[in-house]
Amino acid sequence: MTTKAPHKIAILGASGYTGAELVRLISTHPNMEIVALGANSKAGLAMAQVFPHLRHLNLPVLAKIAEIDFSDVDLCFCALPHATSQEVIRDLPKHLKIVDLSADFRLRDPAEYTRWYGGEHAALDVQAEAVYGLTEFYRDEICTARVVAGTGCNAATGQYALRPLIAAGVIDLDNIIIDLKTGVSGAGRALKENLLHAELSEGAHAYAAGGTHRHLAEFDQEFSLIAGRDVRVQFTPHLIPANRGILGTVYVHGDPEIIHQTLVDAYGDEPFVVTLPMGDLPSTRHIRGSNYCHIGVTADRVNNRATIVVALDNLTKGSSGQALQNANLMLGEDEATGLMLAPVFP
Amino acid sequence: MTTKAPHKIAILGASGYTGAELVRLISTHPNMEIVALGANSKAGLAMAQVFPHLRHLNLPVLAKIAEIDFSDVDLCFCALPHATSQEVIRDLPKHLKIVDLSADFRLRDPAEYTRWYGGEHAALDVQAEAVYGLTEFYRDEICTARVVAGTGCNAATGQYALRPLIAAGVIDLDNIIIDLKTGVSGAGRALKENLLHAELSEGAHAYAAGGTHRHLAEFDQEFSLIAGRDVRVQFTPHLIPANRGILGTVYVHGDPEIIHQTLVDAYGDEPFVVTLPMGDLPSTRHIRGSNYCHIGVTADRVNNRATIVVALDNLTKGSSGQALQNANLMLGEDEATGLMLAPVFP
Amino acid sequence: MTTKAPHKIAILGASGYTGAELVRLISTHPNMEIVALGANSKAGLAMAQVFPHLRHLNLPVLAKIAEIDFSDVDLCFCALPHATSQEVIRDLPKHLKIVDLSADFRLRDPAEYTRWYGGEHAALDVQAEAVYGLTEFYRDEICTARVVAGTGCNAATGQYALRPLIAAGVIDLDNIIIDLKTGVSGAGRALKENLLHAELSEGAHAYAAGGTHRHLAEFDQEFSLIAGRDVRVQFTPHLIPANRGILGTVYVHGDPEIIHQTLVDAYGDEPFVVTLPMGDLPSTRHIRGSNYCHIGVTADRVNNRATIVVALDNLTKGSSGQALQNANLMLGEDEATGLMLAPVFP
Amino acid sequence: MTTKAPHKIAILGASGYTGAELVRLISTHPNMEIVALGANSKAGLAMAQVFPHLRHLNLPVLAKIAEIDFSDVDLCFCALPHATSQEVIRDLPKHLKIVDLSADFRLRDPAEYTRWYGGEHAALDVQAEAVYGLTEFYRDEICTARVVAGTGCNAATGQYALRPLIAAGVIDLDNIIIDLKTGVSGAGRALKENLLHAELSEGAHAYAAGGTHRHLAEFDQEFSLIAGRDVRVQFTPHLIPANRGILGTVYVHGDPEIIHQTLVDAYGDEPFVVTLPMGDLPSTRHIRGSNYCHIGVTADRVNNRATIVVALDNLTKGSSGQALQNANLMLGEDEATGLMLAPVFP
Repeated sequence: MTTKAPHKIAILGASGYTGAELVRLISTHPNMEIVALGANSKAGLAMAQVFPHLRHLNLPVLAKIAEIDFSDVDLCFCALPHATSQEVIRDLPKHLKIVDLSADFRLRDPAEYTRWYGGEHAALDVQAEAVYGLTEFYRDEICTARVVAGTGCNAATGQYALRPLIAAGVIDLDNIIIDLKTGVSGAGRALKENLLHAELSEGAHAYAAGGTHRHLAEFDQEFSLIAGRDVRVQFTPHLIPANRGILGTVYVHGDPEIIHQTLVDAYGDEPFVVTLPMGDLPSTRHIRGSNYCHIGVTADRVNNRATIVVALDNLTKGSSGQALQNANLMLGEDEATGLMLAPVFP
Repeated sequence: MTTKAPHKIAILGASGYTGAELVRLISTHPNMEIVALGANSKAGLAMAQVFPHLRHLNLPVLAKIAEIDFSDVDLCFCALPHATSQEVIRDLPKHLKIVDLSADFRLRDPAEYTRWYGGEHAALDVQAEAVYGLTEFYRDEICTARVVAGTGCNAATGQYALRPLIAAGVIDLDNIIIDLKTGVSGAGRALKENLLHAELSEGAHAYAAGGTHRHLAEFDQEFSLIAGRDVRVQFTPHLIPANRGILGTVYVHGDPEIIHQTLVDAYGDEPFVVTLPMGDLPSTRHIRGSNYCHIGVTADRVNNRATIVVALDNLTKGSSGQALQNANLMLGEDEATGLMLAPVFP
Repeated sequence: MTTKAPHKIAILGASGYTGAELVRLISTHPNMEIVALGANSKAGLAMAQVFPHLRHLNLPVLAKIAEIDFSDVDLCFCALPHATSQEVIRDLPKHLKIVDLSADFRLRDPAEYTRWYGGEHAALDVQAEAVYGLTEFYRDEICTARVVAGTGCNAATGQYALRPLIAAGVIDLDNIIIDLKTGVSGAGRALKENLLHAELSEGAHAYAAGGTHRHLAEFDQEFSLIAGRDVRVQFTPHLIPANRGILGTVYVHGDPEIIHQTLVDAYGDEPFVVTLPMGDLPSTRHIRGSNYCHIGVTADRVNNRATIVVALDNLTKGSSGQALQNANLMLGEDEATGLMLAPVFP
Repeated sequence: MTTKAPHKIAILGASGYTGAELVRLISTHPNMEIVALGANSKAGLAMAQVFPHLRHLNLPVLAKIAEIDFSDVDLCFCALPHATSQEVIRDLPKHLKIVDLSADFRLRDPAEYTRWYGGEHAALDVQAEAVYGLTEFYRDEICTARVVAGTGCNAATGQYALRPLIAAGVIDLDNIIIDLKTGVSGAGRALKENLLHAELSEGAHAYAAGGTHRHLAEFDQEFSLIAGRDVRVQFTPHLIPANRGILGTVYVHGDPEIIHQTLVDAYGDEPFVVTLPMGDLPSTRHIRGSNYCHIGVTADRVNNRATIVVALDNLTKGSSGQALQNANLMLGEDEATGLMLAPVFP
């Protein structure tokens, strides 16, 4: 049994789904203790009132952020809406390590931020020091970072399929299509008509089609950086009647066997990203509730075309699990600590 | 009120989903009367025992096909499994008009049938006279046909998006990707582990990827015929947790405005196929239970790329509704008779 | 073909689920024409924008109620929220026949209205003339009524099981338990956190337990009236992850065979209410989208106890289908006109 | 870090849902090691082929039971079908501790076994020594037992609500109704038509109504034992479209406040069974994937009537989690070890 004191953790935005998922994951982490939960409209409530599934835990009452004493806190997760997040983080004490789950610190270029999200960025100095949080590709920088910017859940999905292939130069950069099928929890707990059960169940639709989804900004930044030239993928997300999970179907031009081997090599030592045997394809139901990401490759009958299918849980590997994985690195823990939970099926 | 006698209808394979859907649709058709229901293992049962939702109807008891008296029957729907269907239809009386819902008479080339479905075809003469049943494109032939071969539900979905575009020469024939999200009823009432609720709900996966799905045979036949050259699309179907509905996302190279206008022109007079305003995209929940097909087009940010999204109900416009539309034509009825039911939402 | 002019119909509250369901049903009614659609916040929109599943219909644009010309209208459906409905109906022209789907005119006793719904009733004279709209039991009054008050969907479910039994005196009036499992569309299109897909799917919970649900007011009024003494049932509704359908499980003390026979006798001539053979129990999936109500009875192993299970579609037989059935009677049509649509399964 | 060797565990019936759930839970247990996985038709396969969600684990290949070497095994979970289980367990080495998840050893009276399950029992001596596995009520016996019989998942649900109340004599024993809403995984992975997604989703139905469900045998045995007289409850299970979770609504005659206080007192020190504040009612979605059981009580408007609502996950607290909790006790571990996982929501 370890004798060192647990890391003291604050979670801001604890009344949303990613905040609750952080609490769920940390609840069995051996070396973390949640000492503060920040919320806004729900300040004053017990977590059990906001999320009854967490009622067995002994947790701090939800508090307004301004009323939280951060002096003892080691690391703060910010699960706030974008734009709000930058204003909050700008004013947090500088001794804090921060893992931000919003979009505010993902883009390196302030002009790109403004183009995709609108408005001036309120914390450019923090943006300048933030490290992009796709763990497997920024591990070294994350270990020494003060601020890590969690990726978009859709952006993570596409990148797991494509980053090694772009880096290895084995696919045509001008013919990349990412077709995503995403569960509804990715849209958060907001009251929107299209998220009602009666509207969403028993159907499917595309949204933000035609190159308008904001996670494209991450694809553009990251893929262009790797390729050393501008890369502009096509990306269509679809909403399907499931709570968790993103299934990404990625269409590329290239040799299927080489593509598969490139992914096998890239992820061979990773604890959470698994390349399936050639021809096997993953399902979101087999990574539900876990930090695992399954990738499959199949050859198309059309010569030199491959289809890559990626599955991850948007709330875990796509956001809160990723955030905890990064926090582990920032705090000197093994990155898999608290994250080895098996998927929940059925 | 019409005074003519109703057309006498038989339905073989009445214990499956497409058979039940035919009964549902015909139950409010003003000029059709169901006089025989064929089944095999369930012969002897009342339809109410096999499909309790039809218990309010006065229907014939399910009978073995060999015991049905076809002498008075005008038109017979065959909703039997492929391979079985050809053997049954081969031996049916020749005075019967036939709408077959299986794959047995969709392919003109016997070699293609053998390649995709295996085995020798048992009714080549019927195959030779059968008309492909995509109503909007074979209307004249269907009116005078004795045997019409209903299309695959996935095959119908892709063709509604692509036929007018290929015919007009406005897209690149070597870069066509069809990504389908299909409801589970398309797989029928068979007892398969992956169709169990606990396996299928709360998730999504690709199947028959890489160019192995049999409906590709229809794409190849039809698109090549229109184009006057071989066309080989990429096609990946996905199973999602919904009972009804296929959402097809079709990626093409071409001018989005021209593509949209081509579809508007092609379907302007059609009663069931609707092209939405430019940029609007359909949802399967808005065609559920109906014979309508909604098509939307959006321009991608990548130059000269368009995304076309098609939604139809696999059991209605994708099979039984289409079959009834064709039967109406074959019997001299208005093709929309009995099919103007509004979608059921929510 | 009939030569008489169709009845001219207005629907107020057309942007909600019951309003849309009325449009769906009326769209294939041979003798009704929708001439006005009233909405409030969505006035000015086309119905296709609010409910894309109705885009194939040629419908009036949504209009503010104050701007509707009712002079030609024969019958007006009011699918407005309670409290609003009474204020609107109070001011409608008196030549109009009205079918109200809200709770405003269901209770005969103004004190009971105030007790359950709060506030003074704003249209007591209309309340005084309104007929309770459970068609099978108020048919004669409905035929001659100017205003009919549609029942609560839960209230209808319980009454179909119990009214004949209370009338026949075959059950113990002090031991009646109604346990309902209801689909989410009954809660309407309101933006509430507990109606989000991510909150509601994959689970079940009781709500308004302990005798607080407002539909109890209808049970109290109707059952006491039939029994000639106060009857107070126990009633617990539960929300389950389905869009449509209410399954009512009703526990009573009495002889199961006599109970079954009483229901068989009561509904033997009804077009929409079906008593299943003794021991058979219904499912909501077999009445989905239809105006049918299926009732089953089973004997418990405990002596003199029976369980009655009722299934109906809350949007159809529970509200809009019932409303149309009543409107048919009020307009001199056969009550089943436009309502013989078969359930949609699967 | 502990230095003692982990307990060596075998799981028979590893290809079913409860077997897979055992593997999931044990995968993060600090003191257990799975050394054998038994299956029958799937022997020879890797667990990753049968349950891809477990592919990250290093597990033994599935083996036929006869080929498993039990000499080193400390404890064996049997997740086999009833009837099969007794034949297998009869022949297992006697040094093995056994937790059986089937119905074979739940009933003390062989005549009752034969009455409810049919046939002669093949291992009466094992039956004689088996302890009923409802942990909170048989904890002392379980600690020293060699064989523990896991309860039925429905039986557990009803007992958590009722045992303390019967023991305390605060409810009328002749008026107890248990109305259950259960998720589909409780029916297992068997290929049955009514478990298909297209059959089950979007609906609800009662099954085994009228006192025929086999879990009644457990209610009868346990409740009569506690009461010291025969107790015969009414019990109706319903299948709803959710994978996991049982919601039990229990109707009793008694004082609601006393009932609530009795449950609060009974479960005050329990790690997994939680009585909510008076009037709060639980939801299955808030215990999903966990070993927690939430109980709520509400007073009915009818005097001296209370409604108790219980929620647990049938695969966890209802079977595999309960089994692990019992195994912990039998092996001298803290009973909560490996079971403190938070529920997965949404």
